[in-house]
Amino acid sequence: MSDTGVTVKKSQDFSEWYVQVVLKAELADYAPVKGCMIIREDAYAVWEKIQEIVNQKIKATGHKNVYFPMFIPESFLKKEAEHFEGFTPEVAWITQGGDSPLDERLAVRPTSETIMYATFNKWIRSWRDLPLKINQWCNIVRWETKATKLFLRTREFLWQEGHTAHATAEEAEAEVIYALNEYRDVMENYLAIPVVVGTKSDSEKFAGALYTTALESIMPDGKALQMGTSHNLGQHFAKVFDVKFIGEDKQDHFVWQTSWGITTRLIGAMIMVHGDDRGLIMPPKVAPTQVVIVPIPFKGLEAEAIAAKTKEIAEKLKTHGVSVLLDDRNEYTPGWKFHQWELKGIPIRIELGPRDLKQGQVVMVRRDTGQKTPVNETDILSTVDKLLVEIQDSMFIKAKAFLQDKTTAVQSYEEFKKVLEEKGGFIKAAWCGSADCEAKVKDETGATIRIRPFQKEEPTTNCIVCAKKANETVYFARSY
Amino acid sequence: MSDTGVTVKKSQDFSEWYVQVVLKAELADYAPVKGCMIIREDAYAVWEKIQEIVNQKIKATGHKNVYFPMFIPESFLKKEAEHFEGFTPEVAWITQGGDSPLDERLAVRPTSETIMYATFNKWIRSWRDLPLKINQWCNIVRWETKATKLFLRTREFLWQEGHTAHATAEEAEAEVIYALNEYRDVMENYLAIPVVVGTKSDSEKFAGALYTTALESIMPDGKALQMGTSHNLGQHFAKVFDVKFIGEDKQDHFVWQTSWGITTRLIGAMIMVHGDDRGLIMPPKVAPTQVVIVPIPFKGLEAEAIAAKTKEIAEKLKTHGVSVLLDDRNEYTPGWKFHQWELKGIPIRIELGPRDLKQGQVVMVRRDTGQKTPVNETDILSTVDKLLVEIQDSMFIKAKAFLQDKTTAVQSYEEFKKVLEEKGGFIKAAWCGSADCEAKVKDETGATIRIRPFQKEEPTTNCIVCAKKANETVYFARSY
Repeated sequence: MSDTGVTVKKSQDFSEWYVQVVLKAELADYAPVKGCMIIREDAYAVWEKIQEIVNQKIKATGHKNVYFPMFIPESFLKKEAEHFEGFTPEVAWITQGGDSPLDERLAVRPTSETIMYATFNKWIRSWRDLPLKINQWCNIVRWETKATKLFLRTREFLWQEGHTAHATAEEAEAEVIYALNEYRDVMENYLAIPVVVGTKSDSEKFAGALYTTALESIMPDGKALQMGTSHNLGQHFAKVFDVKFIGEDKQDHFVWQTSWGITTRLIGAMIMVHGDDRGLIMPPKVAPTQVVIVPIPFKGLEAEAIAAKTKEIAEKLKTHGVSVLLDDRNEYTPGWKFHQWELKGIPIRIELGPRDLKQGQVVMVRRDTGQKTPVNETDILSTVDKLLVEIQDSMFIKAKAFLQDKTTAVQSYEEFKKVLEEKGGFIKAAWCGSADCEAKVKDETGATIRIRPFQKEEPTTNCIVCAKKANETVYFARSY
Repeated sequence: MSDTGVTVKKSQDFSEWYVQVVLKAELADYAPVKGCMIIREDAYAVWEKIQEIVNQKIKATGHKNVYFPMFIPESFLKKEAEHFEGFTPEVAWITQGGDSPLDERLAVRPTSETIMYATFNKWIRSWRDLPLKINQWCNIVRWETKATKLFLRTREFLWQEGHTAHATAEEAEAEVIYALNEYRDVMENYLAIPVVVGTKSDSEKFAGALYTTALESIMPDGKALQMGTSHNLGQHFAKVFDVKFIGEDKQDHFVWQTSWGITTRLIGAMIMVHGDDRGLIMPPKVAPTQVVIVPIPFKGLEAEAIAAKTKEIAEKLKTHGVSVLLDDRNEYTPGWKFHQWELKGIPIRIELGPRDLKQGQVVMVRRDTGQKTPVNETDILSTVDKLLVEIQDSMFIKAKAFLQDKTTAVQSYEEFKKVLEEKGGFIKAAWCGSADCEAKVKDETGATIRIRPFQKEEPTTNCIVCAKKANETVYFARSY
């Protein structure tokens, strides 16, 4: 247990605040291997919740979990030229097994398209075998050369990658949107993080994809974070790996493919978006512990009665389906415990002292607002239920208001640069669609097109860069 | 879908039978990377069941899931000499990240003691931090040079590794046995595979452990399979990684540690132990699909009524908590479906044809015995419940009888060799305890001491090798 709280304010030094919260709330730790991290129990428990939610969704719609090898022969990666070029700079290579050098070096998977689709060509024979919809939960390695950041950018991370093959382009398109919508539900309705959705510009799409759709949000420092992606691969990989099926028309056709993923980076987003100066705030729906009960010790008989009563309440909440922790350790003071569980972000604290005992009540404290309410003993279950919903909702509403506040429409490149420097966030601007204009903005300001939103907005000006006719309004931002 | 069944008998060519079942029942596939495998959906679903069962057990007793990096610097592995020597011949090495050669090569984890315990020394300060009980589910790499075998010996596999640190030797000892007992429950009461439990001889123990306990079973070809291990690490690693705590006595003490694991190899054991000439038989408690319903098509109105009735039954079973598949595809015949789902080992098949419909019944077929029973429509749920239990139980009883039959007590080395050649299985023999005698048996026969059983049996002869006084009866076998 860490003995001290967060020593900087979120608003003053966001970057330092983030690291302190991650380390002191014991969500992660630096690993002895450069650029890698240790995911500790509370963060891993959130990841397990995400797994549970996503598994439930995708299994209900016929996707099956599988596991493919982590090692990919270099020759496989090379087959799709764009894909190889995109990923090679970040590949960790196995060159030796035991005492023997390998004939062909093996990539530790940066993503699994190539190794999977080499096998799809064996599994898919006819239209009867389609759609093929699989998913795997695994570790991924990308040998980052940029500065790493716990959860957000590490050389190894955990993710889920869905891969599907379909008979028609329409089905593949629907699958891309299916995944995106489910991700949005996970992010908004479980992690309480609002997102904007749309497509990526060509320069930002997945290496080898026809097009990439994505979910993006804005972090408290005004930088955008890519929260998840869903790619339409078209027939690019099918042609390279010769993944064909015999249709009902007895003809050979290449399959249409999609892939989509979310990573442990989501935990980083959750920490950044919801935390405050006292530490983490866990959204109730993914909190490993939703309620902590702290008995306020007193001497003699009363202490025993308080111990008995808190045990009883803990049991009742547990039976009711609430995840609850009774912190009845004698070696720590109540004050120390309050501090500790606030740091770790448990949504509700229940205190019970001698006076409460006498009055047949407890005190409930909301982690998000700090609001204290005396609750009659008979109302504990219903109040906890109600509070958990209220906290979840108000965390989302607050985050949504922030995102809206951090989204600015601009009319000129001058205004664009001014907003970027002074406020950050998403900057909605008219774009002509040319890669040159996009590159110019990136070079000059560091901002990229994060999203071409699905919800089209007519451009109100010409392209802010070249002043030619704009086709669309896009979201620019500096990003993680 | 594979179109043909298993073409060899289990009793005739066990090795070929195994490969055919694994491939044709679509449990796994060879990967394009030598020595690696693809775990397909039904096998992965069994692994998810095992995860669920183990997680429930270990979380209820205060163990927490975490995730440590897969990469271990060579210098870490080297710290415990015996450990390094034991694992180095099988390590896959990362020597290059992107375009740059690494300063120090990184091992892909063959097991995680070293990287974890290097961090324990930071996390553990005082007796308040103990016991520390963590677990991780991850992939493991051991660069096998022996012939690989799907599920049983592959260069990458999945496992769970529990790691604990305790204040006293007694607590560590209790933890070793705790893990072993839970594993035994998983194997016997879920996978329906009987095991013998005990300690390993020094030559077979985990590299770096004080002692290793293990669970072993006998496969149909008479070879033993190590099903899981639970190690008492004593203070070996604690001393190497300086993992100390301040006790209630204010003094520094080294912690006492354990580690324990089971792997995807268990799925191989399940296939081998329970399969028959028609394919796989899934134990109901871990079967991804417990019941398959096959409508027997007929023309006209009756076909519609059968379709409606089978849908209704499927819904009822689902609501009842049974995992059920309604195979109502038109492109396959009932006969083809019977064959297919037998191959894949679904415990119960429900058939419904025109005559059944008229009589208000279905026909239930047990996968393990082939027994067909007409069941009144009103009794479907209760009969399925009863049958699932019966199948689970009788699979275990059958496997247990086999294990007992394949366990032979011998009085001499001659008899030992004769039994080993003619029958295989466990051979119980008197052993003096010397490593020389053990090595002699291994050199001359290929058999090793699999288990020194907890249930001690007094030796009835002197050591079968050296004829000196024997201390104990041990279980020898050739093994996977």
